[in-house]
Amino acid sequence: MTTQLTLTEAFPPLTNDLILRAARGEKTERVPVWLMRQAGRYLPEYGEFKAKHNVGFFDMVKTPSMACEITLQPIRRFNLDAAIIFSDILVIPQVLGMGVDVVEGKGVIFDFLLETPEDLKKLYKDANVCTDLSYVFDAITMTRHALNGQCPLFGFSGAPWTLMKFMIDGGSHSPLPKARKWLVTYPNESRELLQLLCEKVVDYLVGQVKAGAQLLQVFDSCAGELGPDKFAEFSLPYLKDIAYRTKEKLLEAHIEPVPMMIENMPANPKRRIAGKHVTLQGNFDPCLLYSQENELKNAVKTMIKRFGTQRYIANLGHGVHKDVNPDNVGLFVDAVHMYSEEINASS
Amino acid sequence: MTTQLTLTEAFPPLTNDLILRAARGEKTERVPVWLMRQAGRYLPEYGEFKAKHNVGFFDMVKTPSMACEITLQPIRRFNLDAAIIFSDILVIPQVLGMGVDVVEGKGVIFDFLLETPEDLKKLYKDANVCTDLSYVFDAITMTRHALNGQCPLFGFSGAPWTLMKFMIDGGSHSPLPKARKWLVTYPNESRELLQLLCEKVVDYLVGQVKAGAQLLQVFDSCAGELGPDKFAEFSLPYLKDIAYRTKEKLLEAHIEPVPMMIENMPANPKRRIAGKHVTLQGNFDPCLLYSQENELKNAVKTMIKRFGTQRYIANLGHGVHKDVNPDNVGLFVDAVHMYSEEINASS
Repeated sequence: MTTQLTLTEAFPPLTNDLILRAARGEKTERVPVWLMRQAGRYLPEYGEFKAKHNVGFFDMVKTPSMACEITLQPIRRFNLDAAIIFSDILVIPQVLGMGVDVVEGKGVIFDFLLETPEDLKKLYKDANVCTDLSYVFDAITMTRHALNGQCPLFGFSGAPWTLMKFMIDGGSHSPLPKARKWLVTYPNESRELLQLLCEKVVDYLVGQVKAGAQLLQVFDSCAGELGPDKFAEFSLPYLKDIAYRTKEKLLEAHIEPVPMMIENMPANPKRRIAGKHVTLQGNFDPCLLYSQENELKNAVKTMIKRFGTQRYIANLGHGVHKDVNPDNVGLFVDAVHMYSEEINASS
Repeated sequence: MTTQLTLTEAFPPLTNDLILRAARGEKTERVPVWLMRQAGRYLPEYGEFKAKHNVGFFDMVKTPSMACEITLQPIRRFNLDAAIIFSDILVIPQVLGMGVDVVEGKGVIFDFLLETPEDLKKLYKDANVCTDLSYVFDAITMTRHALNGQCPLFGFSGAPWTLMKFMIDGGSHSPLPKARKWLVTYPNESRELLQLLCEKVVDYLVGQVKAGAQLLQVFDSCAGELGPDKFAEFSLPYLKDIAYRTKEKLLEAHIEPVPMMIENMPANPKRRIAGKHVTLQGNFDPCLLYSQENELKNAVKTMIKRFGTQRYIANLGHGVHKDVNPDNVGLFVDAVHMYSEEINASS
């Protein structure tokens, strides 16, 4: 830990802290912006890098220098206010003993899925996230240095329910909702699994901050299918626990806690409902990135008017689609900055 | 039309009009209940019938005597307050010239999908729903007679956006949201397609009422992915148009309009928001049908308390899953009746 703290102290000073100020509720001269899945397949340089090195998706995730390079690709192209480490939420199931690969044209393939609670015995419950996921921590430290203070770096994790969903259903869509069936037919074993995931996620997030992550994002992308009752029972308590325990563990280690964003799909955050004292993030429809320039800019304007320019971080509602024109991502980023600066200047 | 009117007049009198009264806002002594996909794969007699006749899904849909038999299967087992004709929303794309089949283990397979607006030329725009879908009308007339007034019979259709989604994406889930991309990149051609679908849906619904349907259900199951802005632009106007024009066309033909239910997934109808003067339908989580008896009954009780016992039709939020125990469907139906009668008696 001493080494890591020393590393952290040695990181280059930040020249753009816009997103950190928005997260803390401080005044911002313009709205900070980043995009879910901003590094990845829609960027030609991503495909070129992958082809040149002849590697698979998880090879890149597990090689810190490669993860670092891919994290930086969108930062070089666009005026983004945050980077997010190139990785995948499924590194946690991998650590627990489930083989996962991304197969071209087929998506995510697990070597086995959890069918019944009996299968929980197959999981490596004592897996040590701090050693097994050291490649993510190394990638974060390397990327934080490489960013040279240009913008802050996000670490991230999947939320327990979303991870459970993938480990049972094999993906975010499945013809039969087996994971949801677990919640009803095996509630105790479901809680056991969610609790295990929660513990691993906390260790993982703490490790990422120790390695240099300046913000954390928790993705509960599958929360939408739970409905309000099941969300309250099987998602929210674990999200709260993660937020609380990550902070506690960082304080115990004498490390300043970092802002944590929690994304869950059903939330359509509205300033009117949330009030003025919460920082909101989102929620540009990624399909609008297919628009013509004028429509795109108008949609950005509408979004900023809805959310306001303070305590707000602009982002998409889902990840960037792989067939989006990168120029439109640039238009989106610049439009967020331009319109929010205009509104701030005139108010 | 004269023949059909005569047929309609000759239908047996209704002995259970509970759901019609709830739909019209009249007082009901207990809450009426039916289930989306109440006829189908979770019933062993469905599988036995299919195996015995060695037929595929659409063979049954297109043979009125078979569709009639399958519609009646859940009515024989459970104390349901409505039947719904056994059919599929994809009969409309079929009429427009798209081959669709259901393949065991693979789901719905189209012989081609709409890739670009150029493909709209492949559609039979002048297809005559009244002749091409006469098998549905025959099935409805036959089933209405066979029901012998035991409960009313629903006709149904997919909504334009949901049909468009299937015709472009091939199903309700797809890795790339091509249908949504159409709305952004080809808005005019999207409207043209939605308008065409709207016209066919109106003719189809009118035909079903003429054949004997006593209620209509419009499924916009994919509306959830639109988000509020796109829903307002590309789904709602067509739903309104369908409701208006179906009624107009029935009145022109001197036929009494029937209640029309419009389902769209994002709506989580709440009595508090909807007010007392709207009939709500829904929204029991189909996964709760996997519960133990006591949990199932408690969940029904909670649902009825939320919705109230008047102007309310109990149903699921999605279709019945194929691996549900049919006994639990019976428990659900009986619990709705029992608890709503109890509440009505004590108030």
